[in-house]
Amino acid sequence: MSAERFEKKKTIDLRKKHIGPSCKIFFSHDPIKIVQAKGQYMYDEKGQRYLDCINNVAHVGHCHPDVVKAGAQQMELLNTNSRFLHDNLVLYAQRLQATLPDKLSVCYFVNSGSEANDLALRLAWQYTGNKDIITLDNAYHGHVSSLIDISPYKFHQSSDAEQNQYVHVAPSPDVYRGKYRGEHLDPATAYADEVKDMVQRVHKKGGKIAAFIAESLQSCGGQVIPPQGYFQQVAQHVREAGGIFIADEVQVGFGRVGTHFWAFQLQGEDFVPDIVTMGKPIGNGHPMSCVVTTKEVAEAFMSSGMEYFNTFGGNPVSCAIGMAVLDVIVKEDLQGNALRVGRYLTNLLEKQKEKHPLVGDIRGRGLFVGLELVKDRLKLTPATAEAQEVIYRLKEQYILLSADGPHRNVLKFKPPMCFTTEDADLVVDKIDHVLTGMSHFPITFFTLCITAG
Amino acid sequence: MSAERFEKKKTIDLRKKHIGPSCKIFFSHDPIKIVQAKGQYMYDEKGQRYLDCINNVAHVGHCHPDVVKAGAQQMELLNTNSRFLHDNLVLYAQRLQATLPDKLSVCYFVNSGSEANDLALRLAWQYTGNKDIITLDNAYHGHVSSLIDISPYKFHQSSDAEQNQYVHVAPSPDVYRGKYRGEHLDPATAYADEVKDMVQRVHKKGGKIAAFIAESLQSCGGQVIPPQGYFQQVAQHVREAGGIFIADEVQVGFGRVGTHFWAFQLQGEDFVPDIVTMGKPIGNGHPMSCVVTTKEVAEAFMSSGMEYFNTFGGNPVSCAIGMAVLDVIVKEDLQGNALRVGRYLTNLLEKQKEKHPLVGDIRGRGLFVGLELVKDRLKLTPATAEAQEVIYRLKEQYILLSADGPHRNVLKFKPPMCFTTEDADLVVDKIDHVLTGMSHFPITFFTLCITAG
Repeated sequence: MSAERFEKKKTIDLRKKHIGPSCKIFFSHDPIKIVQAKGQYMYDEKGQRYLDCINNVAHVGHCHPDVVKAGAQQMELLNTNSRFLHDNLVLYAQRLQATLPDKLSVCYFVNSGSEANDLALRLAWQYTGNKDIITLDNAYHGHVSSLIDISPYKFHQSSDAEQNQYVHVAPSPDVYRGKYRGEHLDPATAYADEVKDMVQRVHKKGGKIAAFIAESLQSCGGQVIPPQGYFQQVAQHVREAGGIFIADEVQVGFGRVGTHFWAFQLQGEDFVPDIVTMGKPIGNGHPMSCVVTTKEVAEAFMSSGMEYFNTFGGNPVSCAIGMAVLDVIVKEDLQGNALRVGRYLTNLLEKQKEKHPLVGDIRGRGLFVGLELVKDRLKLTPATAEAQEVIYRLKEQYILLSADGPHRNVLKFKPPMCFTTEDADLVVDKIDHVLTGMSHFPITFFTLCITAG
Repeated sequence: MSAERFEKKKTIDLRKKHIGPSCKIFFSHDPIKIVQAKGQYMYDEKGQRYLDCINNVAHVGHCHPDVVKAGAQQMELLNTNSRFLHDNLVLYAQRLQATLPDKLSVCYFVNSGSEANDLALRLAWQYTGNKDIITLDNAYHGHVSSLIDISPYKFHQSSDAEQNQYVHVAPSPDVYRGKYRGEHLDPATAYADEVKDMVQRVHKKGGKIAAFIAESLQSCGGQVIPPQGYFQQVAQHVREAGGIFIADEVQVGFGRVGTHFWAFQLQGEDFVPDIVTMGKPIGNGHPMSCVVTTKEVAEAFMSSGMEYFNTFGGNPVSCAIGMAVLDVIVKEDLQGNALRVGRYLTNLLEKQKEKHPLVGDIRGRGLFVGLELVKDRLKLTPATAEAQEVIYRLKEQYILLSADGPHRNVLKFKPPMCFTTEDADLVVDKIDHVLTGMSHFPITFFTLCITAG
């Protein structure tokens, strides 16, 4: 198949005609047509190279040959459902289990982070017999209807969304912009006490807590790093109320945080969730995901009498690809690379903070880093238009970065894990230029147009 | 990768330890380990060949080389999300659209039949502003929580399932065992009037209909073929109430019914659903699926202001695979084969009906055929244990068949579409032998053990 079948304009026209208009494209006034990718680089139809700072799905690098080979070989041999015995299924489950605390030993293989989080809710409802879910403000857990309900990041987008009566939104443990900030003596306890109070309010209204769910680090919510000890305290409050703790690792798992394989492990070895959900990076782009839980939760789920069957989940091809991803992470020490390059990148960005008043906060772990732009470092006024300007200017320099968070003013770094110090130098140098330029011409007509549109 | 890493017993032990016990396996007392497959055949770890009469996912034949090649080539080149322009996405949407009535022109690419049906509900809710859903008895629409709610096939399995207040279950239009049978003068109108009455009951209680959803032919529900004209009348009643019609083609689409590409088209050219959902066969095993709807529904969905983003949906690899599947269907005339071999198989089975009193009904279209076993042709007493006996005996003869339906007494044929008349001869000959044997020894001790377990 040739890299390009249609001229770009024709591709755009056909997309308008045949693809749901709710499916947004990057840089909608002048979208990018990508025809090839390798490692941390993507290439457009003219062969122009873009440095990719955002695709956390292409975890071990776009089109990694080991992953492609594993997938292609298994596709030739067998691709069927898990109602037949297959070694890939159990081998892969064993491999994933080895990365987790012992008690997280039972896997369910599914096709997407959304399917994983929906199943996590079903497990929690069945195990606890309760219905109420506590989620965090600005959280995003997926696009199926049960997850829109627990994703304020999504339901705040809709003018007429009603909040589900069983869903309760606790404050995001954001120590930069949240309710309790850096100067607070014990933000972990303060935020956890918010959950404790919420549990009590739910009980007063006659509700019963099934689960607390949180991304181990909030991603769409603005690259939020919860204070250490927060999850332990929340888990205690929630378990005392009969609920369980679901750690959503869809965006941040598989070594991205550098020091640990899973981001929930940043909270300390004394913290073990009841359910962990995985997704995006797990298959380097192949549609697959996983829910891991305890024997107790799994047995309670079975006791309902309802079979769980997922047509594609755990097929031999997905499992072969999943194992190849784990192999590459080890073979190329990508977790170590995330730690080293992440620190290097964070240090470079800290220097930008000293230089540019617009840079309000730098936060991150490994290759999951946020740079929050503010117009005023005391009032924390979000510099939303400026963040858009930065990502559009970087695009002109062939660098892909995105802005997110509730105010869309947080620049998000979550590149393929093979990102290098040279890549970090390049992107930070370009950001420096853009921010320097913006201090002379604060907002261009161009940006006003695109943010208005 | 070698075909087998562990001895079968070890695979079974690891599965018990690491895979959710709700994930059932075929023939649980002596499951099959499959290591390879080609066309309509699967091979176990000893090289024993099984004739596959059940895997409708491996639509164009297990591991079809054209599909494998298309996937492998695109995996090497690029696999990323739909926020970038790519020709595969629009080409594939165009190809799918060409198989459908003109007004079904807008696609959303997702990862599974479950994601597709959940999105269909979200589209219906947003477009109509209504909440109530009418589903059919014994229907199965997927495993995410919103779909368990509309799947009596699932929620009847659970001892403590509560029926969602917005979900209303209409009688399955089964003219063999249902409320209105073959002798009825106009079962289409009679079943459609049941939906009409249900709409009125919902209105009386203050509800408002968002959608009617049905598989174009019920599969898990027992290979049910709705009488012609039923969908037209239902659509009229539902649309008059402000709702829309969702045709679930996840199990039965892509030419399986032989005379048409989509099973809803069996109802006549004057019937066009508002939403069609696709799944299983669409990628020959690759995790992908699609929702197709009208411009009006798509625009209403966008007007909510909520973006729809699906991480893996519509990636260039999935689209390349989807196009290869469409190509093979045409190139090998698999729709024509389904028609010819399906008729041949049905004729052979009709002869079994003449010969064996246990065979109550033969029904089907193309390579979607059901054989319903009954102990009494007047009372229609389901021959559940006998159906289990048949599938276990066939397994011993290396033929894979399954039993389903609310009474698990319907033998289901839904093989890869390259199934031949010789394959049909083989399976029917074996069924003949088993049924002949059973007429002498009605139920074996063996069957009693497995059905009790």
